[in-house]
Amino acid sequence: MRSLASGAVLHIHTHTFKGTVPGAGRAYIQSSMHGSEVQGNAVIAELLEVFARTPPRGDVVLVPNANPFAINQKAGEYTPGRFDPTTGENWNRTYWLPTLGDVRRPRWPQLKQQAWSRLASQLRTRLQGDLPFGRRLALTLQSLAVGADYVIDLHCANVSARHIYTPEHCADAARYFQIPLILSIPATFDGAMDESVSAPWWTLWQALEAEAYPDLPPPEDLPRGYTLELGGQEVISREDARRDAAGILNFLREHGVVGGRAKKPEPAYLCRLEDYKVIHSRHAGHADYTAAMGVGVKKGAQLAQTLQFGPSPSWLPTLAEEDCIPVLHHSSAIIHTGSELLKVFTNVRKV
Amino acid sequence: MRSLASGAVLHIHTHTFKGTVPGAGRAYIQSSMHGSEVQGNAVIAELLEVFARTPPRGDVVLVPNANPFAINQKAGEYTPGRFDPTTGENWNRTYWLPTLGDVRRPRWPQLKQQAWSRLASQLRTRLQGDLPFGRRLALTLQSLAVGADYVIDLHCANVSARHIYTPEHCADAARYFQIPLILSIPATFDGAMDESVSAPWWTLWQALEAEAYPDLPPPEDLPRGYTLELGGQEVISREDARRDAAGILNFLREHGVVGGRAKKPEPAYLCRLEDYKVIHSRHAGHADYTAAMGVGVKKGAQLAQTLQFGPSPSWLPTLAEEDCIPVLHHSSAIIHTGSELLKVFTNVRKV
Amino acid sequence: MRSLASGAVLHIHTHTFKGTVPGAGRAYIQSSMHGSEVQGNAVIAELLEVFARTPPRGDVVLVPNANPFAINQKAGEYTPGRFDPTTGENWNRTYWLPTLGDVRRPRWPQLKQQAWSRLASQLRTRLQGDLPFGRRLALTLQSLAVGADYVIDLHCANVSARHIYTPEHCADAARYFQIPLILSIPATFDGAMDESVSAPWWTLWQALEAEAYPDLPPPEDLPRGYTLELGGQEVISREDARRDAAGILNFLREHGVVGGRAKKPEPAYLCRLEDYKVIHSRHAGHADYTAAMGVGVKKGAQLAQTLQFGPSPSWLPTLAEEDCIPVLHHSSAIIHTGSELLKVFTNVRKV
Amino acid sequence: MRSLASGAVLHIHTHTFKGTVPGAGRAYIQSSMHGSEVQGNAVIAELLEVFARTPPRGDVVLVPNANPFAINQKAGEYTPGRFDPTTGENWNRTYWLPTLGDVRRPRWPQLKQQAWSRLASQLRTRLQGDLPFGRRLALTLQSLAVGADYVIDLHCANVSARHIYTPEHCADAARYFQIPLILSIPATFDGAMDESVSAPWWTLWQALEAEAYPDLPPPEDLPRGYTLELGGQEVISREDARRDAAGILNFLREHGVVGGRAKKPEPAYLCRLEDYKVIHSRHAGHADYTAAMGVGVKKGAQLAQTLQFGPSPSWLPTLAEEDCIPVLHHSSAIIHTGSELLKVFTNVRKV
Repeated sequence: MRSLASGAVLHIHTHTFKGTVPGAGRAYIQSSMHGSEVQGNAVIAELLEVFARTPPRGDVVLVPNANPFAINQKAGEYTPGRFDPTTGENWNRTYWLPTLGDVRRPRWPQLKQQAWSRLASQLRTRLQGDLPFGRRLALTLQSLAVGADYVIDLHCANVSARHIYTPEHCADAARYFQIPLILSIPATFDGAMDESVSAPWWTLWQALEAEAYPDLPPPEDLPRGYTLELGGQEVISREDARRDAAGILNFLREHGVVGGRAKKPEPAYLCRLEDYKVIHSRHAGHADYTAAMGVGVKKGAQLAQTLQFGPSPSWLPTLAEEDCIPVLHHSSAIIHTGSELLKVFTNVRKV
Repeated sequence: MRSLASGAVLHIHTHTFKGTVPGAGRAYIQSSMHGSEVQGNAVIAELLEVFARTPPRGDVVLVPNANPFAINQKAGEYTPGRFDPTTGENWNRTYWLPTLGDVRRPRWPQLKQQAWSRLASQLRTRLQGDLPFGRRLALTLQSLAVGADYVIDLHCANVSARHIYTPEHCADAARYFQIPLILSIPATFDGAMDESVSAPWWTLWQALEAEAYPDLPPPEDLPRGYTLELGGQEVISREDARRDAAGILNFLREHGVVGGRAKKPEPAYLCRLEDYKVIHSRHAGHADYTAAMGVGVKKGAQLAQTLQFGPSPSWLPTLAEEDCIPVLHHSSAIIHTGSELLKVFTNVRKV
Repeated sequence: MRSLASGAVLHIHTHTFKGTVPGAGRAYIQSSMHGSEVQGNAVIAELLEVFARTPPRGDVVLVPNANPFAINQKAGEYTPGRFDPTTGENWNRTYWLPTLGDVRRPRWPQLKQQAWSRLASQLRTRLQGDLPFGRRLALTLQSLAVGADYVIDLHCANVSARHIYTPEHCADAARYFQIPLILSIPATFDGAMDESVSAPWWTLWQALEAEAYPDLPPPEDLPRGYTLELGGQEVISREDARRDAAGILNFLREHGVVGGRAKKPEPAYLCRLEDYKVIHSRHAGHADYTAAMGVGVKKGAQLAQTLQFGPSPSWLPTLAEEDCIPVLHHSSAIIHTGSELLKVFTNVRKV
Repeated sequence: MRSLASGAVLHIHTHTFKGTVPGAGRAYIQSSMHGSEVQGNAVIAELLEVFARTPPRGDVVLVPNANPFAINQKAGEYTPGRFDPTTGENWNRTYWLPTLGDVRRPRWPQLKQQAWSRLASQLRTRLQGDLPFGRRLALTLQSLAVGADYVIDLHCANVSARHIYTPEHCADAARYFQIPLILSIPATFDGAMDESVSAPWWTLWQALEAEAYPDLPPPEDLPRGYTLELGGQEVISREDARRDAAGILNFLREHGVVGGRAKKPEPAYLCRLEDYKVIHSRHAGHADYTAAMGVGVKKGAQLAQTLQFGPSPSWLPTLAEEDCIPVLHHSSAIIHTGSELLKVFTNVRKV
């Protein structure tokens, strides 16, 4: 995958389970594209054990440690894992947006197969070119994900409560992951893995609908990508991984990729991407994040208090400007003005 | 400008010279937006001396050290100056693209003034909002540049020969800077300072032309931005700064902002942005960059040789795939595969 | 204190309270010499409030934010605060070891005053020389601490339970800080602030004893330094700061620097420095630290389990090789072999 | 050697040439212990070619890329190679000082063999313990160097002229490396590779002399270490490597490890370690290093000029305080006060 200055070569390991029921749907799950976000690796280790005991109904491809380069870099004891230490590029903004629109129009399952095989071949061609590493890595992972109906990208986020990014045209299904904070995003493309799957299929679907394609599947049947944010970065918990894996298995069960009957989802909180607000720090100093992540607060409640220095120190509060659910906060108490202090769900809808 | 965790506050210092000839054109020159690219600071120090002796004909605003935050960060003895050490964001991709198109249409000089005052007010409003630091810095600099006909952004690049980014609709004028390597870019917007000036005015010009605006100025008279890459990063030379300043003064002379007669430009090499090729390293190891930057080579010539490790070390050449002028190379000999090895002008035109 | 490349200047702010009772003993408290270890800053903010309401009996000097340079550096959202980002030098290994031994020998309180004034003058001389910044910072702080009977240096440590470094000749007094994990260190010098106070006075005391100095004070009355490790780095809690401050006030009360009656200390666990063991990671991968910090475990108990990658992932346990109390662990789950995994108290004695 | 979080394993490759003449002396040459100092790697590549054509008279062990971990870490395009990015520890301060003194006293060549085999066994034992990676790496390299009469450690330094560290008891021999700037160091130990060889043998020699050991060899025949600083870090030149290798071969020729007749050395400049002065920057800003490295200057000459910011920029000179030869300067123009600006030889003696 990547040769290093020392002469060592880094590889990606994939684990493929052939499904027991032909045509049962295919899932692709990767973790740790951002090197410091490792809980997903523990979840995949868990899934490997589960599928070793009980093979899935559909095909499942598991790719832990998707970015073996990022995970090895260190700055102090921490891992500068969100962006390439050389270029600053966010590893999850380097994916490619394919166009599926101009395939000839056979009936649905054939059309899907055709689009995929065309995509696979385009990826192969592109991978032969002169590419920066970040792009090559992304295209390689996209190649591994070709053919998957469900692409699940396991991330973590700063210090945070678990939450999910779902395409809005199939937000309902996201509840089966058993994570009660759901972000619904439009099917646009900003370079991320989940979008690189959802956006082109949704574009194709809209084109097919416009031309009154005979057997148009419902949008929920389109291949799509989810990003799961499994708590904070730089930490791992095997115990939590069992629960996280259970949620993913529940989702796969609901979609027939895994055998058995899915549990009905509990109520969840839904927020649209445009209502996901970043609060940048107006104060410089040390932030004490007093609000619990994942727990709704009323307008005016204190989210954080910042110890500001100068001739005499003082604590300055940051208050909620509207009812909201704090979802994540800066990884460090030490903060300059204009840094991302918190991110909060606003205009939340219970679903 | 930015308060730091320690309680210290960083400021931007601006130096404004009132022109001696009313209406003589206005220039805005900033340097070191990327903290490690400091030669422009020496150039502005030089211009400050020149203008203290002989005030310019037109107004000139000088902003050295445009990013006092980036310049203070250290990683080893180096300065991680191209991107925000916290977010990875390239400091020169955070500017805002204004829309100048919907102003009512008075005659030209009034239209220009109106567009500028509208822009100034929009910037003020935006600066009151909750912004990440990178964006706030960019908008602050854009505010300082309002009203300038010539926005000159002084950068450096890795290890490199001096070169210029010019909007293609006024590429000819760029030759007066006396830097013989010129990159011509379309008036699109990718977040950079120069583009944030050139693109909206060009868009407005095209709209005016389409509606047969009565006294349409020639495109060369539009406000526009240039980026000058003044050699390598992490180095400064007062002696070179005198030459660099002389080139800028020559440009300003040609446009009437500085008194006297401009020297006719020497021949230069022009390359379109789409022909500016990145060569990513196919080898990992240590690169010996054997080609001189700024000097044209023929197809097949050796650009670099890389010492690759493993059981036995060997030198692997990287050859020019076409006639080209190498312009910059990686700042370090130590390189992994897929890192930017070199950037070269191809399909060069002598002008 | 330090001028930065941007032109900004960083300062240290000191807060001095004149005691109400002459001769009541003097305390010096500083915090955050390692920029990422900020809880002590909150504790000093708390003490400032307390002393503003009720002035102390003895003199108290408070220096929050002792290293305004380190606190402003960023690598991702984290703060590379333990060492100088340019030289790699641990900020708490740059102090100077004075010699107090060759003072002429007046009676005790005069001898102490004389030693201090000689030390103050030596520090002034040294500060006039050409010094690296780390050394200049340390000497400046040492100058501020001259005359203090109790030097309290507030630090934090990775992810950790609160614990104390005390000189072994006055370990008993350390229990008044109300932190139940106590590390007893010999009066040697390895460059740290606490040692720079304890070691020379202890050396002097031994010399005086050898020469049968008439009114030798008990070793517990010597000026000495403590390092308090107030939990994990990169976090701050105002609520915890109240408890931390209460412990420090209790210590100062016991020594007459603050009025009132000290609470008797609870039992604590004492470990000698030589029994404070580092466990380096034998496995590479992601560590799930399963033992609670600060809670004793038996030989054979699992301290951590590491998810190791390769063709197939597996969890590898790290077991306690003897009865111990885990005190701190690596700040990140992501770990290469040979990195510090955990530090544990062994051969613990209840006191 | 080291397993990484990704699961990859890094190795050290050694290249051993068996000498053609028994008892002809043994050399050990390693390079790039500091990951960013790579010119030595090119030199070893050169030596590998030379010895493949013409085997040496004595045994030669070559270890390029001695620290495969450090070389792979990146911060921007640079390589934080001088210290461990996690601990801040200088990689060349982690070696171990063995004691050779208490061997029984056979005649000289046997004594030497005995000391080495004892050392080898001690190293094996230590390598079985729980060690931090930096220490393990150092001990591993020390193990590879056991038995060598000439240990040559190839480094680079910031931006610098080539220079050599030699133990003072065999400074004369150092001139055969054909590098005219020689630093003579006492046989003490500060953690570096060269010292870990020179110091214990010199200590043993002094003990033997004190006890009137019968066939005491001259000090020049003792095993010893040299550090060669082959120009600036982060750069490599195959052309220069040929010259560097020629110097090393000349030294080996003079000592019989390589066949042929050594060239007599040219005059060189010798400086004692205590006269090797660091000039820390008194100014903050951007330094233009105007003196040429390696070229002597008179007292009062300008070494650098620093562009200092603030309300108005100005250039501030740093002058030589005595006659000296500037040897290296900071790797970046961007500098805060108290950073190492330059290092200069003073009280130079021509030899």
